[in-house]
Amino acid sequence: MIGARGFYPPKSATGRSSLIPAPPWHYSGDLLTVEYRTDPARVRELLPEPLEMAPEDPGAVALIWADWQSCGADRAELLDPVRAQYKECFAVVRCAYRARTYSRCVYIWVDKDFAVARGNHQGYPKKLGSIHLTRPHPYGPAPRIESGAVFGATLAAADRRLAEAVVTLREPSETDGFVNAHPMAHHRQLPAIDGKGLALDELIASGAAAFEGGRAWSGDADLALFDAPTEELAELTVDEPIAAYYRQVGVTWNGGTLLERGL
Amino acid sequence: MIGARGFYPPKSATGRSSLIPAPPWHYSGDLLTVEYRTDPARVRELLPEPLEMAPEDPGAVALIWADWQSCGADRAELLDPVRAQYKECFAVVRCAYRARTYSRCVYIWVDKDFAVARGNHQGYPKKLGSIHLTRPHPYGPAPRIESGAVFGATLAAADRRLAEAVVTLREPSETDGFVNAHPMAHHRQLPAIDGKGLALDELIASGAAAFEGGRAWSGDADLALFDAPTEELAELTVDEPIAAYYRQVGVTWNGGTLLERGL
Amino acid sequence: MIGARGFYPPKSATGRSSLIPAPPWHYSGDLLTVEYRTDPARVRELLPEPLEMAPEDPGAVALIWADWQSCGADRAELLDPVRAQYKECFAVVRCAYRARTYSRCVYIWVDKDFAVARGNHQGYPKKLGSIHLTRPHPYGPAPRIESGAVFGATLAAADRRLAEAVVTLREPSETDGFVNAHPMAHHRQLPAIDGKGLALDELIASGAAAFEGGRAWSGDADLALFDAPTEELAELTVDEPIAAYYRQVGVTWNGGTLLERGL
Amino acid sequence: MIGARGFYPPKSATGRSSLIPAPPWHYSGDLLTVEYRTDPARVRELLPEPLEMAPEDPGAVALIWADWQSCGADRAELLDPVRAQYKECFAVVRCAYRARTYSRCVYIWVDKDFAVARGNHQGYPKKLGSIHLTRPHPYGPAPRIESGAVFGATLAAADRRLAEAVVTLREPSETDGFVNAHPMAHHRQLPAIDGKGLALDELIASGAAAFEGGRAWSGDADLALFDAPTEELAELTVDEPIAAYYRQVGVTWNGGTLLERGL
Repeated sequence: MIGARGFYPPKSATGRSSLIPAPPWHYSGDLLTVEYRTDPARVRELLPEPLEMAPEDPGAVALIWADWQSCGADRAELLDPVRAQYKECFAVVRCAYRARTYSRCVYIWVDKDFAVARGNHQGYPKKLGSIHLTRPHPYGPAPRIESGAVFGATLAAADRRLAEAVVTLREPSETDGFVNAHPMAHHRQLPAIDGKGLALDELIASGAAAFEGGRAWSGDADLALFDAPTEELAELTVDEPIAAYYRQVGVTWNGGTLLERGL
Repeated sequence: MIGARGFYPPKSATGRSSLIPAPPWHYSGDLLTVEYRTDPARVRELLPEPLEMAPEDPGAVALIWADWQSCGADRAELLDPVRAQYKECFAVVRCAYRARTYSRCVYIWVDKDFAVARGNHQGYPKKLGSIHLTRPHPYGPAPRIESGAVFGATLAAADRRLAEAVVTLREPSETDGFVNAHPMAHHRQLPAIDGKGLALDELIASGAAAFEGGRAWSGDADLALFDAPTEELAELTVDEPIAAYYRQVGVTWNGGTLLERGL
Repeated sequence: MIGARGFYPPKSATGRSSLIPAPPWHYSGDLLTVEYRTDPARVRELLPEPLEMAPEDPGAVALIWADWQSCGADRAELLDPVRAQYKECFAVVRCAYRARTYSRCVYIWVDKDFAVARGNHQGYPKKLGSIHLTRPHPYGPAPRIESGAVFGATLAAADRRLAEAVVTLREPSETDGFVNAHPMAHHRQLPAIDGKGLALDELIASGAAAFEGGRAWSGDADLALFDAPTEELAELTVDEPIAAYYRQVGVTWNGGTLLERGL
Repeated sequence: MIGARGFYPPKSATGRSSLIPAPPWHYSGDLLTVEYRTDPARVRELLPEPLEMAPEDPGAVALIWADWQSCGADRAELLDPVRAQYKECFAVVRCAYRARTYSRCVYIWVDKDFAVARGNHQGYPKKLGSIHLTRPHPYGPAPRIESGAVFGATLAAADRRLAEAVVTLREPSETDGFVNAHPMAHHRQLPAIDGKGLALDELIASGAAAFEGGRAWSGDADLALFDAPTEELAELTVDEPIAAYYRQVGVTWNGGTLLERGL
């Protein structure tokens, strides 16, 4: 159809202006994960019907920093890296839907517009933020990925620091955590243009279409969350540390499935 | 409903985390408008069915720079101005739908996340960009709003300059242009999560719920558009200048109406 | 001389690359000033010899937010406003030198590189920061400059908020404060390349070469300062409010005078 | 001395506010180098007396992109990585002084204030810019450091793209280039506050105090330079490609030596 080309707005005669290409989307990145337990009531109040609490360890939270390079099928973004590189920090909890456990991102900040747009498609509730995490490096003062290595990670939005962590690696690990280990169950919602209810209300599921990863490392973390007028991350208080993890991964995302419509 | 509060994601128990409050949204700002004619075929190819070309002067384009302060009903953002201030540059054409003429934003860049989210609701196809325009000032070297005053305006995205204009004011004007003077006819579309078609496909109309403005000034512009791998603004070539305008305005936006659903 | 052209690095055959042109530098801008008293000992410890405490009200501090457009003699920057516009927040105290009272900027944050370079020349100890202040506007929700108008102002650096103020205007004022009202006495210092002492150590004075301004307004402020690992602004604790001010000004800076060399 | 503590402004009672700590400064980073030949006259005109052209291959230029994590002696910045991470792009030529060959940085852009301040000490003529380079990664679509790997690199300043390169690695290399392989001969200059001549005019030399590095790789590059009103990088036209290189390194910088004073 005329004027309708492109996976995402802005649409054009060629589709070249689309903020993001159609999936698959490919990612190379480093994940720094801090898992802890909060009051399960704080998780429950973030789960709209028909989602329920996860049956086990329902107060578990993962706060994850990621340093990504991403691209579409033709990988063009990798050679113009301002369009490929971004960082994000996101809070994940678990929930249950029809007797299956899902992961669910409840807050997320990224630093590029293409990542915001992908989140709009995938149901991640993205805001812009300033995200930093120490990168491993084989030379000089930056840490190697090894026992005793120390990584810092911070998050800010609207000129306020919202979270900071210092993670010390201790030993190789079978996993890089359990909170973000399920398919994601996300809502995709948009208000009606007249303000009466929702024009779009979907519960969808998605996960990685392909995955490869290096050895995961586990360790421990000091994590601090800070309040802000328009943020509630700090309501997910750190009541009990679980563990921290570091892992380098390659991921492909290629769509998901509709679980149900709310309307 | 539990976990469902908030006009926009992220939703929470209180709604405080929502990236944007529910309308009405109030704006104070300065508008620098450059109107010109391009090949009408370049406009037509941006208009998806059922939109048609405007019956008169169908190749008219307005490229508008705006320097805004905006807020919700409680005006809290104005006192934490990192959450209120943003700039944008957007290209507007006209179209016809059911024998009525509408304005339509075909490309737009903003520099804050709350503006991206509002655009997602209103059907503006927003990307992030770096937008600058000279501000009038009563003292020192910056221009007053008067005959002979000269303003510069630039747009960049992904580290590339996309547009630059130099506007000279000549005289008071009855209007600040005709291209962006109609209600907006915008699509709100989101791909299905499985990649097959659209999950949301609406044609909506909206306009200002309230408006006040100072005297408009008209003048002339030098406008240059630059190509980029992921942008098509420069396809709207400047074939014939029309005029340039400057105006300070106050606007309220408070929702729109559904014209039709595509599905 | 070959390769030596330009007021400031980088120097080149033409001088065109210089980060800043030679003075005079012209400025249009808005100043939001919050004056208060801190413990005079906190001021004294910031004054290196031969500077002494101001004889009267030695604990007075001005924290000033400014929203500028600036340019060199040919005013070229105004038409490419990414090179003209910047914001800053700076803390000023007073001091005495040879029985004369001077103002002195002890901390300052700006958001553009040309402003950092000018500060290096003028002896302002500039860091980069994120600075925001409400702008007056004649229409819509932003404040006019009038009794009861409320302005917000914030400062962040390294992803931490360092200061925030809410200022309410009350009445026209003869002045916009007394702390920043004297010539500036600043040091210009650079360590020796071998790390042994200073290669440059000057005490200089400078002030505006030309000034015009609108009516000043006074009012009151709520001011909060926040600690950070690499900042000491919050050491200048707000012990007693004095007043707050708003004023629009035009300023020209055109060099200063050497008071003495330290070496 | 009261109020004089700190290696660099702003100075304070404790020295904690200093924008940079005293050397040594430690760096971990990746270097992408593109070497080519330009007209030697373009190099010569950038060399002020008493510098002379390098005796061999005087038109050789290295344009280097670097992705750094850096810190002072206590390495505190690494755990608050917004204060450690920065990227830069810089152009290096060679010159001769007293029959010895030196490297010399003629243009450089960085993206953090602490890097600007270190450059002011070291004689690098730093501006702010937006710098991106593809990062190697062991998983997913980003390149490994191996034959055939392709890296992109871009530079922008003031919202204009100034340079872009695409580098393909071919084979391990004995070196990562010869243009930036000498001690640096830099000027440190600051105009007098009264505008009459220079208050500081030094020619200094410095180099790495410690170095470790991985295997260098060589390859070939497509390099494009773009003009801008306030930049002259594009005057160093790419007349003949030499080679491109990639290397991961660890470096310590700990001061330099004064070669001569200009005054």
